[in-house]
Amino acid sequence: MPLDSSSPGNDSNEPLVELDAHRLEAFSDSVMAVIITIMAFDLKTPMSADLHGLQGRVPSILVYILSFTFVGIYWNNHHHLLRATRRISGAVMWTNLHLLFWLSLIPFATAWVGTAHASALPASVYGVVALGAALAYFALVRSILRANVDDSAIARAVGRDVKGILSPIIYAGAIALAFVSPYISYGCYAVVAIIWFVPDRRLAKVA
Amino acid sequence: MPLDSSSPGNDSNEPLVELDAHRLEAFSDSVMAVIITIMAFDLKTPMSADLHGLQGRVPSILVYILSFTFVGIYWNNHHHLLRATRRISGAVMWTNLHLLFWLSLIPFATAWVGTAHASALPASVYGVVALGAALAYFALVRSILRANVDDSAIARAVGRDVKGILSPIIYAGAIALAFVSPYISYGCYAVVAIIWFVPDRRLAKVA
Amino acid sequence: MPLDSSSPGNDSNEPLVELDAHRLEAFSDSVMAVIITIMAFDLKTPMSADLHGLQGRVPSILVYILSFTFVGIYWNNHHHLLRATRRISGAVMWTNLHLLFWLSLIPFATAWVGTAHASALPASVYGVVALGAALAYFALVRSILRANVDDSAIARAVGRDVKGILSPIIYAGAIALAFVSPYISYGCYAVVAIIWFVPDRRLAKVA
Amino acid sequence: MPLDSSSPGNDSNEPLVELDAHRLEAFSDSVMAVIITIMAFDLKTPMSADLHGLQGRVPSILVYILSFTFVGIYWNNHHHLLRATRRISGAVMWTNLHLLFWLSLIPFATAWVGTAHASALPASVYGVVALGAALAYFALVRSILRANVDDSAIARAVGRDVKGILSPIIYAGAIALAFVSPYISYGCYAVVAIIWFVPDRRLAKVA
Repeated sequence: MPLDSSSPGNDSNEPLVELDAHRLEAFSDSVMAVIITIMAFDLKTPMSADLHGLQGRVPSILVYILSFTFVGIYWNNHHHLLRATRRISGAVMWTNLHLLFWLSLIPFATAWVGTAHASALPASVYGVVALGAALAYFALVRSILRANVDDSAIARAVGRDVKGILSPIIYAGAIALAFVSPYISYGCYAVVAIIWFVPDRRLAKVA
Repeated sequence: MPLDSSSPGNDSNEPLVELDAHRLEAFSDSVMAVIITIMAFDLKTPMSADLHGLQGRVPSILVYILSFTFVGIYWNNHHHLLRATRRISGAVMWTNLHLLFWLSLIPFATAWVGTAHASALPASVYGVVALGAALAYFALVRSILRANVDDSAIARAVGRDVKGILSPIIYAGAIALAFVSPYISYGCYAVVAIIWFVPDRRLAKVA
Repeated sequence: MPLDSSSPGNDSNEPLVELDAHRLEAFSDSVMAVIITIMAFDLKTPMSADLHGLQGRVPSILVYILSFTFVGIYWNNHHHLLRATRRISGAVMWTNLHLLFWLSLIPFATAWVGTAHASALPASVYGVVALGAALAYFALVRSILRANVDDSAIARAVGRDVKGILSPIIYAGAIALAFVSPYISYGCYAVVAIIWFVPDRRLAKVA
Repeated sequence: MPLDSSSPGNDSNEPLVELDAHRLEAFSDSVMAVIITIMAFDLKTPMSADLHGLQGRVPSILVYILSFTFVGIYWNNHHHLLRATRRISGAVMWTNLHLLFWLSLIPFATAWVGTAHASALPASVYGVVALGAALAYFALVRSILRANVDDSAIARAVGRDVKGILSPIIYAGAIALAFVSPYISYGCYAVVAIIWFVPDRRLAKVA
């Protein structure tokens, strides 16, 4: 396996490899950029060129807005997380790919909800994908912390991750509640988006 | 929330975070690159392998040229804007994503106009998306100016934004006039493209 | 218009703007990467899961190989051209977008030839797109030379462009000859690919 | 051909050109990012919004997981390989494009297996694409070694490539065994993925 053991700062007895975070960021950015654009591409041309045709696309457009915000939040957080990261280990590379795997399923879940928004299962599956992504992000943060144990900047950057713990709980609830009504699930997904979106901006101004 | 408060130059009492503009640029570039290519991909294979089949694709190709120019102008302006930008705040990141959201709807509007160019609603919806993008770009410029209040280079770079004020007004007119004739709207969109395209090159030579 | 007139080296009385070539490269790379991948995506799943189904995809696969090589050659040449480029003007940015426009039509032409390879018009239209790209590349080289008149490295890098003059002539012939037989055109396109591909490697070893 | 013969370190009599590896990486990353995302996009919306509809997508999702891991392993190895690379020759650029060609066929093979997983031919063709990619990667490693003969770091990084020799043998077997049962082939592909995935992480911790 091609390890670059000659990189600076690897003189400790830690089993970690110091790699350039730049390409990890660039690759993740490309994947997230394509996910966002491909979802919009999935907004099928309306069946008729009138208001009735456009109305048929309203559920698709609404769930697209939700998913766009969802991926946007991940991109934003991923950006901040990687900025504070000094060391990348093999585990970080794979936990990052694992996160991208779940995010890459978002267009599938989005398209399904867009065509059958009144049904329980698509709404529930959307939650499964969202839960998978949330847990994968949690695992990514842990693996980055393990690879940077002697670096306090990253620990401070991650901080007390209340939202990171709250999100999966809400998603788990939404997966089950979809079978009561899918609209409860959509409400849950919107709530998670709001708690990530709003305080981020407030904190940025307070910090 | 992962804020890197240790970045240099953040010792003022301003609530702004100095982040690297590079990844914001790279992500925006990826999204715009995929938008451009996906629109071309949306040019469906002609129904027959003769001139009649190709003629059926002429409206799609024309609106593709319009949309390609549209995204190209945004890429060009975005490039110049970000080059002059020193500080990125959380608000800049979100206003940038907001711009990308509207741009990501261009393929949808383009495909609809391509299949129903003689109808009023697709032509009008195309204008709504263009107006959304224009207002989002305006908001992005404002948030960048707020994040760089003490930097005169960016203010100079933005300058008197006559075209930035004129474009949304023309788009708003085109949205309404589509219901008189969609071809008036297409004319309006072409006019906006031309006023952005032509003077840019002249000024570049004068500067 | 947002011009960064404060960039170093712009103290001459030349009407040129020195911009960073990096983002131009990155954007062009993204577009070409998506073009390549989207063409492969256009290889439709065979109708049946047997040799007969696969045989139905052979023309599509062959034209995909041609188009992949075509875009690969452009990427390669673009890479070398931009490496030697110091100054980017507004005209370079637009001639570059113009090249990307023609390249973005390659998937459309490829898909059409793939579904109707025995017909004259798709083979001819493929040549029109190839000719457009060749002329656009030529214009890009000229605009880069104009923006770097005092830089001999770029002039040396471009050198005597025999292939750049030969390619459009062959393409123009192929556009017309498609109406005699489309297979003559395919032969012409393959010949252009070979004359670009083979000597490039030989020269690289001789240089 | 536009060669930059003025780059530093090219004063030897070796016929190699020292180019920046960065753009090669960025382009390859973009292609691999789009491949991953486009495959997920190929997961068609289930026919019905219930468990039966979702079950119909299970084979597609399983082969997607396999292909995602497959491309992920290549991205990971490519990342390590290029990091250790100092010199890029024209041959490296073309062997790299050759690898991307085979990887770009993965979505095609994935989609075909996803729709006809019980048939021999799609399973066999998947192996042909995987074998092509494995041999192309092998050729890329050789061309990089040739371009960096005086650099021991890259030779160390490549090392004894047991997995690189084992993989094509297993793929070749899977291509033939698909005609006994496609499920044997899928098992082979999973085995290759596991031998690449697991030891990579172990070695990273031992190194």
